[in-house]
Amino acid sequence: MTNPETIASIGENEALRRTVSRLNGGEFTIVGSGDDSAVISTTDDRFVVTTDTMIEGHDFRLDWSTFFDLGFKAVATNVSDVAAMGAKPTSLVVAIAVPGSTPVTALEAFADGLSAACTQLAPGCAVVGGDLASSDQVFISVTAHGALEGRAPVLRSGAKAGDVVAVAGTLGRAAAGLALLQSGNRDAIAAYDDFVAVQLRPTPPIAQGVAAAESGATSMLDVSDGLAGDAARIAKASGVRIRLNRSDLLGFAAMVEEPAMAISADAFDWVLNGGEDHALLATFSPEAKLPRAFKPIGLVADGSGVWLDGEELPEGGWDSVLGRSN
Amino acid sequence: MTNPETIASIGENEALRRTVSRLNGGEFTIVGSGDDSAVISTTDDRFVVTTDTMIEGHDFRLDWSTFFDLGFKAVATNVSDVAAMGAKPTSLVVAIAVPGSTPVTALEAFADGLSAACTQLAPGCAVVGGDLASSDQVFISVTAHGALEGRAPVLRSGAKAGDVVAVAGTLGRAAAGLALLQSGNRDAIAAYDDFVAVQLRPTPPIAQGVAAAESGATSMLDVSDGLAGDAARIAKASGVRIRLNRSDLLGFAAMVEEPAMAISADAFDWVLNGGEDHALLATFSPEAKLPRAFKPIGLVADGSGVWLDGEELPEGGWDSVLGRSN
Repeated sequence: MTNPETIASIGENEALRRTVSRLNGGEFTIVGSGDDSAVISTTDDRFVVTTDTMIEGHDFRLDWSTFFDLGFKAVATNVSDVAAMGAKPTSLVVAIAVPGSTPVTALEAFADGLSAACTQLAPGCAVVGGDLASSDQVFISVTAHGALEGRAPVLRSGAKAGDVVAVAGTLGRAAAGLALLQSGNRDAIAAYDDFVAVQLRPTPPIAQGVAAAESGATSMLDVSDGLAGDAARIAKASGVRIRLNRSDLLGFAAMVEEPAMAISADAFDWVLNGGEDHALLATFSPEAKLPRAFKPIGLVADGSGVWLDGEELPEGGWDSVLGRSN
Repeated sequence: MTNPETIASIGENEALRRTVSRLNGGEFTIVGSGDDSAVISTTDDRFVVTTDTMIEGHDFRLDWSTFFDLGFKAVATNVSDVAAMGAKPTSLVVAIAVPGSTPVTALEAFADGLSAACTQLAPGCAVVGGDLASSDQVFISVTAHGALEGRAPVLRSGAKAGDVVAVAGTLGRAAAGLALLQSGNRDAIAAYDDFVAVQLRPTPPIAQGVAAAESGATSMLDVSDGLAGDAARIAKASGVRIRLNRSDLLGFAAMVEEPAMAISADAFDWVLNGGEDHALLATFSPEAKLPRAFKPIGLVADGSGVWLDGEELPEGGWDSVLGRSN
């Protein structure tokens, strides 16, 4: 049996060539990869940009995620930040560093994951540039761009007392998936593999970002660190209080009740504090007609902090270096 | 004595806050860091984007480079790729991963290096977003953006027989600096510290990218892997032969002759094959008036490959994974 080809055996240039050849073209790409830079169309005279990093051992484990999963998730989490501005994702650049011993097929699977996520979540968006290097740890860095198409960006700071708080997408499912993986309970993992899939290959409601902006959303973000913590970011940036209604969140909890029971976890805690579903959390003026995908879960009031029914929630938020809420 | 504060002791959020507070604002920044994405002005309906990665042990050594140096170089190498399209750098996003034990002062120095490079090399350009994470190895990933201001992008593929080949910036100085560091010869390193500085904190002629485009450059790239190898990229993309004149390169060699003698190296080899000065290599039609910073070094002819006087140079180019020319 011959040894599989690795990055080290064929070299960065050839490995990059094979990877790039698997990427789909983009609707906004004027000049694609292969020159010093790419050139991207913006539809107006601004663009939206965000970046995020995924590091082996900190953000993912190679015994849980395939390279296809990593490519898919890298796109999903970044275009979600573009959508949260009310923008349409147009392009991505991707840097990946892997050990030289990594099989070329792993890199090809990564490229397939990137492409699949673009096709499924953000049609027209494509990877237009990238970088491949060797390292001890797997390291993935993605920058995503979007077009505002003439709209004002939807910031975190525009929520006003009286606004409706609403969410598009799922809450708690990615946390359920993570808890299942961490439990090591193979039967539960197999039985609830659709929750595990949300953790490994999240499918945020990307098109709802533009829909929310067009409906006049006053503030928006994507829920990456948990509903409570991310709602606190809107409350702080806007100088308001966010009042969440427990009754409006029970439907989300019911959706993760079965896996929670299987591993003796708290479904409602996943809904309130679980991140990584990348749902869109937005506020709308009381007169606005909410896009159909947005479900009201509370109201904006004068004051500060995040309240659940009558009770203020502790300040939260995940710190990826400290590895704890703070 | 108290222990210095580290990323692990104060957490990612606080460390990122302190870092971001040291960054300068940007002329093109509509919405800066702190929201899901930044929003950048483009001056027309396109933008230019490029990305590059620097990994400890592969692209730099922490006993040679300070964190200030790393910030400076990360900006310089990326805005150089923007300039090579004939664009004006407008914005950067920066991801850095460091061990949790890294002192916060190192991160602050990194931010100061980013800012200094923007101010010195690309005024008006600023870091508009970023990411901080913890890892075993230091990993830096930068994405840079630029504005074409209505101009066509200058690609690698536009060189035509009869064009003049010209270069702006230095050749061989960064290679001299690297060779000095590798020699371990402390006296030589101290005597020629301005060459070492070019390796650690390159100062590419960024504004000359726009100048070349305005003078009608037919092709351009930045010399990151060596003049011979990068000229071959233009030759291949344009389907032409690049003829370099040795006599026109002797002035560059004279500039690095002293350090070459000090460590018994070949000055002309540095000029021909040394990378990382990030000079701009461009071609211009014979009728074009070259910007003053561009020095003619050869001509474009029918055929293929890169020739030095009457002799064809071997195909070259640095492969950062293989760690050799290929």
